[in-house]
Amino acid sequence: MKLLEERIMKDGRILNGNIVKVDSFLNHQLDIKFLDKLAEEIATYFKDKSINKILTIEASGIALATVASKHLDDAMVVFCKKQKTLNIGDDVYESKVESFTTKKNYTITVSKKFLSSEDNLLIIDDFLAEGNALKGLIDVSKQAGANIAGISVAIEKGFQDGGKIIREMGYDLLSLAIIDSIEDGKISFR
Amino acid sequence: MKLLEERIMKDGRILNGNIVKVDSFLNHQLDIKFLDKLAEEIATYFKDKSINKILTIEASGIALATVASKHLDDAMVVFCKKQKTLNIGDDVYESKVESFTTKKNYTITVSKKFLSSEDNLLIIDDFLAEGNALKGLIDVSKQAGANIAGISVAIEKGFQDGGKIIREMGYDLLSLAIIDSIEDGKISFR
Repeated sequence: MKLLEERIMKDGRILNGNIVKVDSFLNHQLDIKFLDKLAEEIATYFKDKSINKILTIEASGIALATVASKHLDDAMVVFCKKQKTLNIGDDVYESKVESFTTKKNYTITVSKKFLSSEDNLLIIDDFLAEGNALKGLIDVSKQAGANIAGISVAIEKGFQDGGKIIREMGYDLLSLAIIDSIEDGKISFR
Repeated sequence: MKLLEERIMKDGRILNGNIVKVDSFLNHQLDIKFLDKLAEEIATYFKDKSINKILTIEASGIALATVASKHLDDAMVVFCKKQKTLNIGDDVYESKVESFTTKKNYTITVSKKFLSSEDNLLIIDDFLAEGNALKGLIDVSKQAGANIAGISVAIEKGFQDGGKIIREMGYDLLSLAIIDSIEDGKISFR
């Protein structure tokens, strides 16, 4: 998606070789009007899939999932939590995830009340690198018996394995921008 | 706000005496169409305040802040993070917060890039109980020299001290629903 690639070129910052920071519009400060255009693109791609629910993960996926809801017939949004809180209760699906960013393992949980075999899901997240968070979201969806109609991320890092793995699992994955390489501070898109 | 009170009565569940769970529409599963109506009410109340940025905290505040942006001239949203990640860098404002829900202390951080003396803020969160999260958000805003034009939460628990404290600090606080008591499983609103 040209619009997103241009924004990454304009506002993205490169750290430590292969980390692209897009925190000025995507995952710390949020440019909602811009995210709404990304969401529209996602919704257009999946419009014939009868999606009734959007599944994402705290915290960075929530804004994009929220703006996507309106474009998908007000689909409910459910976000997985990254740690158990006292209140969530024991009735949860859970899955272990390794974070590429922090190198720590964490457990994602989602209440069994909000995910079931009735659901036809679109999974949304901001970033796809090794695909660990998405694998966790797929895992809890399967535990619930829900159907995964599609998966979408804003930015895929094509030089890491996540996108390949998710596509080889057979999922319809829409990445709005795929970064193929970062060399000498220059970002190349697929 | 009648609409929110009715929804709490219909879908809220009471746990352990004084915890109201509204996770079916406000902070785990998200009914975005409904949140948009709450956001419209918030925006109407603060419409003359020239708000340029909405400050919230991960994770539950993000969805409401996101839908509020559109109603406030596409104001940018910034969410504070609840723990340092490897990527956020050292250039952050931070404040210590005690969680009413988990009883644990945590540190909230926000990048100095996204909060400054140029900002006229609306602070948004889902819940107000003891007011600890809001006090943290106020603290980082003050560190940045930003002006706080107003504060809004979806649900205030009026039988805890947070709302009183925030109002006595002089802030214009809009709580869309104030729960005054929960007795024998019955919720009373102010």
